Amino acid sequence: MDTYTAPLRDVRFVLEHITPLTDLTATSRFAHAEPDLVAGLLEEAGRFAASAIAPTNREGDAHGARIEDGGVITPDSFKQAYQQYLEAGWGAVQHPPEFEGGGFPLTVANAVKEFITSANMAFSLGPLLTTGAVYLMQHHCSRAQLDTYVPKMVSGEWAGTMNLTEPQAGSDVGAVTTRAVPADDGTYRVTGQKIYITYGEHDLTDNIIHLVLARLPDAPPGTKGISLFIVPKFLVNDDGSLGARNDVEVVSLEHKLGIHASPTCVMAFGERGEGAVGYLVGEPHQGMRQMFTMMNDARLGVGLQGLAIAERAYQQALAYAQDRQQGRGPTTPPGEQAPIIEHADVRRMLMTMKAHIEGVRALCYLNAYALDLAHAAEDEATRDHHTKLADLLTPLSKAWGTDVGVEMTSLAVQVHGGMGFVEETGVAQHYRDARIAPIYEGTNGIQALDLVGRKLPMDGGAFVKGFLGDLRAEVDALPTTLSALTAPLHEGLDVVERTTAWLDAHRDAMDDVAAGATPYLRVLATVVAGVLLARGAAGAQQQLDDGADDDGFLTAKVTVARFFATQIVPTVGGHAAAVTAGAEDLRALTPAQLAP
Amino acid sequence: MDTYTAPLRDVRFVLEHITPLTDLTATSRFAHAEPDLVAGLLEEAGRFAASAIAPTNREGDAHGARIEDGGVITPDSFKQAYQQYLEAGWGAVQHPPEFEGGGFPLTVANAVKEFITSANMAFSLGPLLTTGAVYLMQHHCSRAQLDTYVPKMVSGEWAGTMNLTEPQAGSDVGAVTTRAVPADDGTYRVTGQKIYITYGEHDLTDNIIHLVLARLPDAPPGTKGISLFIVPKFLVNDDGSLGARNDVEVVSLEHKLGIHASPTCVMAFGERGEGAVGYLVGEPHQGMRQMFTMMNDARLGVGLQGLAIAERAYQQALAYAQDRQQGRGPTTPPGEQAPIIEHADVRRMLMTMKAHIEGVRALCYLNAYALDLAHAAEDEATRDHHTKLADLLTPLSKAWGTDVGVEMTSLAVQVHGGMGFVEETGVAQHYRDARIAPIYEGTNGIQALDLVGRKLPMDGGAFVKGFLGDLRAEVDALPTTLSALTAPLHEGLDVVERTTAWLDAHRDAMDDVAAGATPYLRVLATVVAGVLLARGAAGAQQQLDDGADDDGFLTAKVTVARFFATQIVPTVGGHAAAVTAGAEDLRALTPAQLAP
Repeated sequence: MDTYTAPLRDVRFVLEHITPLTDLTATSRFAHAEPDLVAGLLEEAGRFAASAIAPTNREGDAHGARIEDGGVITPDSFKQAYQQYLEAGWGAVQHPPEFEGGGFPLTVANAVKEFITSANMAFSLGPLLTTGAVYLMQHHCSRAQLDTYVPKMVSGEWAGTMNLTEPQAGSDVGAVTTRAVPADDGTYRVTGQKIYITYGEHDLTDNIIHLVLARLPDAPPGTKGISLFIVPKFLVNDDGSLGARNDVEVVSLEHKLGIHASPTCVMAFGERGEGAVGYLVGEPHQGMRQMFTMMNDARLGVGLQGLAIAERAYQQALAYAQDRQQGRGPTTPPGEQAPIIEHADVRRMLMTMKAHIEGVRALCYLNAYALDLAHAAEDEATRDHHTKLADLLTPLSKAWGTDVGVEMTSLAVQVHGGMGFVEETGVAQHYRDARIAPIYEGTNGIQALDLVGRKLPMDGGAFVKGFLGDLRAEVDALPTTLSALTAPLHEGLDVVERTTAWLDAHRDAMDDVAAGATPYLRVLATVVAGVLLARGAAGAQQQLDDGADDDGFLTAKVTVARFFATQIVPTVGGHAAAVTAGAEDLRALTPAQLAP
Repeated sequence: MDTYTAPLRDVRFVLEHITPLTDLTATSRFAHAEPDLVAGLLEEAGRFAASAIAPTNREGDAHGARIEDGGVITPDSFKQAYQQYLEAGWGAVQHPPEFEGGGFPLTVANAVKEFITSANMAFSLGPLLTTGAVYLMQHHCSRAQLDTYVPKMVSGEWAGTMNLTEPQAGSDVGAVTTRAVPADDGTYRVTGQKIYITYGEHDLTDNIIHLVLARLPDAPPGTKGISLFIVPKFLVNDDGSLGARNDVEVVSLEHKLGIHASPTCVMAFGERGEGAVGYLVGEPHQGMRQMFTMMNDARLGVGLQGLAIAERAYQQALAYAQDRQQGRGPTTPPGEQAPIIEHADVRRMLMTMKAHIEGVRALCYLNAYALDLAHAAEDEATRDHHTKLADLLTPLSKAWGTDVGVEMTSLAVQVHGGMGFVEETGVAQHYRDARIAPIYEGTNGIQALDLVGRKLPMDGGAFVKGFLGDLRAEVDALPTTLSALTAPLHEGLDVVERTTAWLDAHRDAMDDVAAGATPYLRVLATVVAGVLLARGAAGAQQQLDDGADDDGFLTAKVTVARFFATQIVPTVGGHAAAVTAGAEDLRALTPAQLAP
């Protein structure tokens, strides 16, 4: 049952009606990404994900990655799958043509990521980290560094990693203590230990390019004293061939709840001698600023994981609900059993999943679209607007997308009944895999703090106010055939405006603002998604009104948007009290009072 | 970090202020269960759970139960733990004195169950099933059957199991096909296969008494044709010694998401010959009715598992939050780190857990208290009232308790950050273990249908109306010092009354009622718990007003009740729309439209 079909029509629908691809192709940067080309690319990516990657998912979970003779062995099926990935050049889609990339918008590249992540989240993380590393290097490396590393990373021949976390420096990156000392030849010697390094070591590529945060001897304390270094697993000779093995080693792998096939490494730098050879990226002490370059991209990528796993689990639950005969539906003859999809409560679970998945997809794709226009729009005002829009949406995509990922995979388990708790069914794996996404790349609590602490105050609050005004106007402009959506969406926006105003009014008591951050993020994300689905419904309705030949797909878009607006959006009112309660009751109890 | 402390004070507080033990000891049946005796019993149970059982939890998860030479081997530590359990007689607490039981109220016995389940859920399931079997046998077995089996089951020397499910008969028990044919000697020969049999085979006891649902040759179809049989693993000779090995075998064990150490067996009856020897319980075709005898008890027991696992995970998260240094709190000096409990968002997670745990505990204990008075009250009206109260509360305890169990263990993982995803930390186990509880013993969807389909209509709706009126009166009577709770609780009750009225008004469209069942259950359970916590807060406040010497425990009860009333109860308003939406949008899409 655990097969995967890429939701091509759903994605194409978003690119047509919610985040128009034509807005992107209107820019000179993306002019080549014509609809037909994109459609073909997505179709091919969907086929690749479903046929080459999806079948590796269960094996990867069952066997995991393992450490052997100082190396990491990935599951057998991964080697072949990666080879196909590399040959097809999927890693190059979003990178600029100057680095042999496809130059496609992030909006399109993210669709490819969604498919591959649905197919196998543990597999997808290797390429994801490489893509992130390339993105960062493009922006900050010297020409010589670019020429040495980036083309082989874009092609997928080499992999990239991010080395930030240390035992005492998780969310608090400023506490990093890994040291980098200048050597006589202009390079550096890096010494220290990093943890939670995704694909820190593996057997899929000939070389691994580690990007490492470390402190120079003269570094000021905190985040202002962190520099970024390139530390290749194998040094690269001037002719591009591989040279000496660098002093960077995997020490151990974590035994995790999920994504078993993704090696999560403890990495040691400079254990054998005077330090691993490292190359400074850009200027000293700029590591945090450099990392921020890719933060939106990386966080959106993780939000997309919540979406992708939810989609995979939903497909499995839907198939099971049609197959499993149990009990009687409203119209089942006595003595017979009906497929459980006939039960209203199972339908509620399926619709809840489908509506949330479409809502998160709309939000994440809008986020990518905003990032694309932030870079590619012809005029500065448009770039500026979309830069801010992306900044606002990123914590929503990351936190709401991944919370929804956990909740929807849990529902998918529930649809399966007892079979959901049996590992062979496969749906439990999605539930386990999904659980990391609210944690890494900035915990969801940190996303919420980022939202209320940095994003709401943009332009003194004016940006968010303008954005909400645009959403209002969009709701007002819905066609009368969608009038059922209007009132609940307006009420949702009322809640958003009321809670936003409360947070703005309490900026002098940041602890009260922080106390409301998590419920506020849920409120805002849900309402934004509701309006985006309504936008899609309006597009579908227009097509229907224009006499489109509909096989049920377009009417389904209207139904799902209505379900989301009338049954999901109203939940936000229930969170308003927690947003505006302040920190007092949260802090009222001492640890002794909290304890049993 | 993963130790366990029984929440003795919390439980004693419930028994004093929310579900008064004195109401139970006022009956002749429970007169002996004096507060001091109960306090001593609970203290001893808490010590036992923490010291003898809790340390077996990780090993059980890591090694699991395994099958070998046709038998099931439980983890090594389980043998010793079970021996101690047996010697202390913990299994006997709730059974009547005539069977060598302790004769304690279920309310007290459930506290013992809570502690043991928190200590090790997988371990607790064996005793839980035995207790359920004894309970059922007490009510339906012949004197000779009772004498043969029950005393050794009460003592724990023998175990009991429930054999209901078959591949085609899960939620739909009426689809059972296992056959029982009369033999010449008055016994029966049972043939068939059962799945998901918890502790169907193991090495902890000398004998296992299987209670098996099967059909006689002349049985009518459906639930009306199911009979109940005793099928012992070893036949019992007239002198009570063990005789021949019966033809019942474990075929395989499920490989599960959680509760790894609890053997979930596929059982074969009569594979080797003409059938396993079985003994009919009571009259033919009464199996379903007999099973119903123990349903409230069993479902409440599962709700208690949600509570117990949430408590265990909460304790671990609280300890971690005090230990882990990361980032700065509002008052941390620059350059230093603070324990993460100083962060408002971590506080929100901890308070959310604590408040839900106390809410579920209040609900589950009230449910047990109602079951106790349903049997033990001196006058029939009181018995009748509490029978109905227990009937109403049981689906709430089971479904809300176990949903909360999943959600709170997820929060506990989140508090741990990256460490939460690493299995060695132990908190991920709670997240995995908790996931079964919303599934077995009637899925939570079935609980919700039971609530709206069978429980709301009791006395034509008058019972629920009266119950809600009592809750209203209780809120009205709160002391002025708790006035902050009054408005949100009344608003919560408004939502309950409004949605209840809607469901009542739509009884002719059962599909619409079924469509609203799950969100309605959440609404009702949350509000009931809110009022119960307010009841406790009123008791605590009274003690404070009377000048009680408080070390912070009583004021914490007031704070938690206020947090629950003002920040959790308001969420119910958000679910009302889904309760009253009807089934139309749930059923609007065909399977093809639901698919990608």
